Amino acid sequence: MGGIRAAGAGTGLSGAANASAGCIVLTFERMTRIVEVAPAEKWVRVQPGVVGDDLRAVLAEQGLWYPPDPASSPWPTIGGNIATNAGGMCCVKYGVTGDYVRELEVVTGTGEIVRVGRRTAKGVAGYDLASLIVGSEGTLAVVTEAVLRLRPLPHPPLTIAGHFDSLIDAGRAVTAVAESGVIPSVLELVDEHCLRAVDDWKHLGLSLEARAILIGRTDAPGELGAHEARVLSECFAAGGASFVAVSSDALESEALYAARRLAYPALERLGPVLTEDVCVPLLVVPDVLALIGDIGRRHDVLIANVAHAGDGNLHPLIITPPGDDAARVRAQRAFDDIIAAALAAGGTVTGEHGVGLLKLPGLAAELSPAVVDLHHAVKDALDPHGILNPGKAIPPRG
Amino acid sequence: MGGIRAAGAGTGLSGAANASAGCIVLTFERMTRIVEVAPAEKWVRVQPGVVGDDLRAVLAEQGLWYPPDPASSPWPTIGGNIATNAGGMCCVKYGVTGDYVRELEVVTGTGEIVRVGRRTAKGVAGYDLASLIVGSEGTLAVVTEAVLRLRPLPHPPLTIAGHFDSLIDAGRAVTAVAESGVIPSVLELVDEHCLRAVDDWKHLGLSLEARAILIGRTDAPGELGAHEARVLSECFAAGGASFVAVSSDALESEALYAARRLAYPALERLGPVLTEDVCVPLLVVPDVLALIGDIGRRHDVLIANVAHAGDGNLHPLIITPPGDDAARVRAQRAFDDIIAAALAAGGTVTGEHGVGLLKLPGLAAELSPAVVDLHHAVKDALDPHGILNPGKAIPPRG
Repeated sequence: MGGIRAAGAGTGLSGAANASAGCIVLTFERMTRIVEVAPAEKWVRVQPGVVGDDLRAVLAEQGLWYPPDPASSPWPTIGGNIATNAGGMCCVKYGVTGDYVRELEVVTGTGEIVRVGRRTAKGVAGYDLASLIVGSEGTLAVVTEAVLRLRPLPHPPLTIAGHFDSLIDAGRAVTAVAESGVIPSVLELVDEHCLRAVDDWKHLGLSLEARAILIGRTDAPGELGAHEARVLSECFAAGGASFVAVSSDALESEALYAARRLAYPALERLGPVLTEDVCVPLLVVPDVLALIGDIGRRHDVLIANVAHAGDGNLHPLIITPPGDDAARVRAQRAFDDIIAAALAAGGTVTGEHGVGLLKLPGLAAELSPAVVDLHHAVKDALDPHGILNPGKAIPPRG
Repeated sequence: MGGIRAAGAGTGLSGAANASAGCIVLTFERMTRIVEVAPAEKWVRVQPGVVGDDLRAVLAEQGLWYPPDPASSPWPTIGGNIATNAGGMCCVKYGVTGDYVRELEVVTGTGEIVRVGRRTAKGVAGYDLASLIVGSEGTLAVVTEAVLRLRPLPHPPLTIAGHFDSLIDAGRAVTAVAESGVIPSVLELVDEHCLRAVDDWKHLGLSLEARAILIGRTDAPGELGAHEARVLSECFAAGGASFVAVSSDALESEALYAARRLAYPALERLGPVLTEDVCVPLLVVPDVLALIGDIGRRHDVLIANVAHAGDGNLHPLIITPPGDDAARVRAQRAFDDIIAAALAAGGTVTGEHGVGLLKLPGLAAELSPAVVDLHHAVKDALDPHGILNPGKAIPPRG
């Protein structure tokens, strides 16, 4: 159908980064400049091809931090992160990409180059078009420059590891954390399948006895950090942890963190992976994890689980043996059932990966027809010729 | 021209809350229910007529906090706060209204009742229509219910008061704070005219010798709080403070805080007040304060100043004697010059009060014609008959 698809690193997990037939792919791989850092104003101006981890390294030298950190952070670009409103590990305390976008230079569907948003700490001059464009998956405008809000570097974390005999126990610990009033800087879940796949690949010496582990972190300093670590440990114990340990050892905690970061590529070595991204209320995390287990058994497919547990953002990973077409059909059914379960539990079909192509049916189930109509009205307003990443991100009119 | 104007408490300072001729005023004064509090999920569901301070009082009983706190917080409603994306005292650390809106029920310009956004901690299912509607001053949709994100109650603050012999010295201290890396939970500026007007009215026993005071706060607990208070004190001294004191005494610090909160009504007792709301980069705060002084002298008008200084959000208040029409003409010229100075300094014409009617000319100067066109395209998409708060918030097409 023709059109323009702006390209980041192509690490997207929902198909927004797949060009449709006839699309021009517009790449930013040579627009990787960090144009300007303003330490006192706490912003940085970047081109869209900058990789998140590269940006973080440069900023750290000045005591500054750009928080949003997708688990894949060595690869994706800021442009791609903005297009998908990417989340990550630290979102539970520090928010997502959209919380850090102050100003964008974009090209609209009519070819106008405009700046939206503002560089000052606050501002309400006009509609919040920057937030509208963030997460629109390249369907409303193409981002050509961004001014991103920064924070001071956080304090070194304490890491709290919990081992659990079941995913559901780990889910109960997540609920206990939500009820505790402490907001951890990280709360990640990794199940046995992910731990084993990472360890088979990278030989990190991970403990493989637990059915699931939770990795909690607090970056509060001093007494407060010690207090928060104690509360998180108690929550893990309340969920039924078989083992809980607090560590300030960076190496030890990095091995666990690496296990989380490498879960996707490690599992992809086993066969095709269908990646889920539902986000559910925190109180139903244990129930939804139990339902996911039931769904895997019912459709006879292996479902591994990682999760940004502190946000209720679950990533069930449905893995099928290479070349097994019947298993892929069953995997698709399991995928659809997980989406239905998440919606029934008051959740959303996508917490951070975006709609792309993969979640178009789920999105149509989540949004009311009137809201779908609003999406089309906005799309027509900003891209009247329908040339920006056509066919992605919004369901067809009802 | 007819249409519908949704009414909050009518405390808006830019005219968005003034109904145009022929407009139906839609009041929410009987929709004041706090419908549902979800402590573990950290959200509250409210009707738009709830007053912010009433909501805060109910939440505090459960250890929860809704941060956005306009200085006028005993009066305005949540619906009005959402319509204007209201800021306040704690924004420097905790952000503005839009940072706390998870889900909205709204009525669009075509009469559809829809829910936009989501209740989960994260979610990217569809365009961020909730953020688009926040701050649109009732011109895109009418908000009939909101789900607001909450935080745990903050720790009791330490208050750091600084007295300065000039506004510009106070501005230098603000710059020093921006460069220090410490993010205060409050950083407010109040000048001598405001202090005197409040003290004449309320007899709070405020010190009236300083030309300007800064009120800083840190709500970090324990050692970290003591450290931050020390850094803020040093920044005040570096700006040239004649007196600096740190206090954990709630009563003492509340008197200062009251002086800030009461500045508007106290000054309005002196005569008509034209209220500015520019927001500028932190490094130019001293320069812009100096320019505002020059502008006052040039046009022979009294300009009092309060500021959410930590955000660079300045509120010069141009006061004219009752019944002095010539002074009002000069005040309008000063107002226009302040806007021009803020734009030239890289700022915005409105940090938090909104565009309404008052800032329509300033907004037209700030936005490029192509961005104005985008605003009209979005307005036409959501309100095709142009019935929602007509004539407000967006400049005419160029």
